[in-house]
Amino acid sequence: MTDRIREFLRNRREDGPCLVVDLDVVRDNYLAFAHALPDTRVFYAVKANPAPEVLKLLASLGSCFDTASVAEIEMALAAGATPDRISFGNTIKKERDVARAFELGIRLYAVDCEAEVEKVARVAPGSRVFCRILCDGAGAEWPLSRKFGCDPSLAVGVLEHAHRLGLEAYGVSFHVGSQQRNPRAWDQALASAAGIFRDCAERGIGLSMVNLGGGFPAKYLNDIPAVEAYGSSIFDSLRAHFGNAIPETIIEPGRGMVGNAGVIEAEVVLVSRKSADDVVRWVYLDIGKFGGLAETMEEAIRYPIRTERDGDTLEDCILAGPTCDSADVLYEKTPYPLPVSLAIGDKVLIEGAGAYTTTYAAVAFNGFPPLKAYHI
Amino acid sequence: MTDRIREFLRNRREDGPCLVVDLDVVRDNYLAFAHALPDTRVFYAVKANPAPEVLKLLASLGSCFDTASVAEIEMALAAGATPDRISFGNTIKKERDVARAFELGIRLYAVDCEAEVEKVARVAPGSRVFCRILCDGAGAEWPLSRKFGCDPSLAVGVLEHAHRLGLEAYGVSFHVGSQQRNPRAWDQALASAAGIFRDCAERGIGLSMVNLGGGFPAKYLNDIPAVEAYGSSIFDSLRAHFGNAIPETIIEPGRGMVGNAGVIEAEVVLVSRKSADDVVRWVYLDIGKFGGLAETMEEAIRYPIRTERDGDTLEDCILAGPTCDSADVLYEKTPYPLPVSLAIGDKVLIEGAGAYTTTYAAVAFNGFPPLKAYHI
Repeated sequence: MTDRIREFLRNRREDGPCLVVDLDVVRDNYLAFAHALPDTRVFYAVKANPAPEVLKLLASLGSCFDTASVAEIEMALAAGATPDRISFGNTIKKERDVARAFELGIRLYAVDCEAEVEKVARVAPGSRVFCRILCDGAGAEWPLSRKFGCDPSLAVGVLEHAHRLGLEAYGVSFHVGSQQRNPRAWDQALASAAGIFRDCAERGIGLSMVNLGGGFPAKYLNDIPAVEAYGSSIFDSLRAHFGNAIPETIIEPGRGMVGNAGVIEAEVVLVSRKSADDVVRWVYLDIGKFGGLAETMEEAIRYPIRTERDGDTLEDCILAGPTCDSADVLYEKTPYPLPVSLAIGDKVLIEGAGAYTTTYAAVAFNGFPPLKAYHI
Repeated sequence: MTDRIREFLRNRREDGPCLVVDLDVVRDNYLAFAHALPDTRVFYAVKANPAPEVLKLLASLGSCFDTASVAEIEMALAAGATPDRISFGNTIKKERDVARAFELGIRLYAVDCEAEVEKVARVAPGSRVFCRILCDGAGAEWPLSRKFGCDPSLAVGVLEHAHRLGLEAYGVSFHVGSQQRNPRAWDQALASAAGIFRDCAERGIGLSMVNLGGGFPAKYLNDIPAVEAYGSSIFDSLRAHFGNAIPETIIEPGRGMVGNAGVIEAEVVLVSRKSADDVVRWVYLDIGKFGGLAETMEEAIRYPIRTERDGDTLEDCILAGPTCDSADVLYEKTPYPLPVSLAIGDKVLIEGAGAYTTTYAAVAFNGFPPLKAYHI
């Protein structure tokens, strides 16, 4: 919460939940990344929050952009980024989308298998590709599946295939898992990456770049290490595994760039108990899993929630959204402590909501409009 | 799949996934409900698919409408339903939304606690309310939580409170769980409802109506009982628990009304393996959990998927969506058998997709547009 957001909300009159993002916080976050990892290029993960105001600010600060689709590429270009500052970082791309990206000037693509290399080779000739490898994601709060990346043992073959097809085998990427609270989590993946660099070199292919991915956390309920701790830990690992031949590196912060910059204001719609002997209240908000808080899925992300009654006694509640879907429950397995005096009509502030909220909102589930947002 | 949908898709040229709903199937479903439960009024659950074409068709057939928000009420009115054919069935309503509904002529409201009764009494005086009670949901495929409804022991107090505040204590509702495959699942809840009718009568309050809710299944991979089986089983339970004083009843089918009327056409974007010794392929589609298939959450709803290669040998795969979100995986715990010859660029048809797809789609996650839909 910042004074600027507080001031904005004080003057707000309209109905319904809304997200307010303080661009000054985004600016501070960018500068902190640039300072903590001075030799690393920052590719902001557009999917975390693609608001034009955020993209324009970051473009003006010199950021590059990691994009997941042609639409995101177009947004980054519209914000003022040149094509050489944009990567098409999704490993799952239609060939005609790669072709469209190539037309737009994009020359940097993620791949994780030979079939994807072949698409890029056919319609984006001569481009740079980096191969994403699997990473176990231990220590991350948002679940990481095996969806993206190949086993490191396959990566050399994928990069060699790219080289053979006239692409530039540029490097290796990985992702240590979103909301990664362990700054040492990059070490093992960097060891794998260094091994791939050596194996490629033996085959006459000189890799240049390691994409360290995202995973940098936002502050929710628990404290997180400072970005400097990540920077120095990553640098130590780079030196340990690459010695004096430290490669070019990039990072792709999304949550870490915008998460703590945003606050959602919501309203208590109902407080009730289900039976006479229920000890836990149900508290229903006008925002839920389908209105922007999708990351409460499996109760993965636990947002800090402020109320106007925070001095009062706290008591656990089950927190749920406003839709007629029984799955639209935010916190139940681990109930959430909120003031026992919380009442219908009260406003609540959901902090750390700058990332992965607006774009996850459903178009009109139950007739509710998507989350409104203001970037100030 | 119907000939009309097949014909429509044959002529489709644009890119991206789309849903096609055959309105003839919706009409058949409505008539089947009306025939199987001749003494029951049908309140279509608008949230399942609020397309104007669906609402207009059902309004013209004489259907009533169960709505979750003021926006859904407005859609039902725009489709030609009169206010007396619309219920505001969400137990979680802002008081100003109740007031707006009352202005629009709505006189039938769901409640499940005294606080909600008080909102209705203040701004929708004299209206009818029904009290939703909890139901265990055993036999349902989509998880039912305790989010809606109160313990039956509280219902009499809630209805008495309504009566005291000048509302009409109209009846009881419950929901046996979505995609309920056991036609006997209504029996226990009807026993509870009959008890509440007796208890209210003892206090001088004559209830009139039992809202049997939804839960009627759509055909996915497993066979389901015919709607007649539900009709006769429910009628048997009504007779067993209410004797000769069978109350007015309503049902709220959503999935059962539109689920089997829709097919999503999607495209295979990538097929890959993660390591040399992986036995299970990954198949990536251009639609996933955030593009309309939200009901694959926890692999709850398992859609039938047809391909052009259905004669070929089947082999299990992990099925995933196109976004850069590691949670965007459709079927992994129970892998999905698809033709081993399935290739990048192939079209697939996802059947039973007429309910709970379009409106669940995210506004723009990863830059991907929401699911397109055609109602023919």
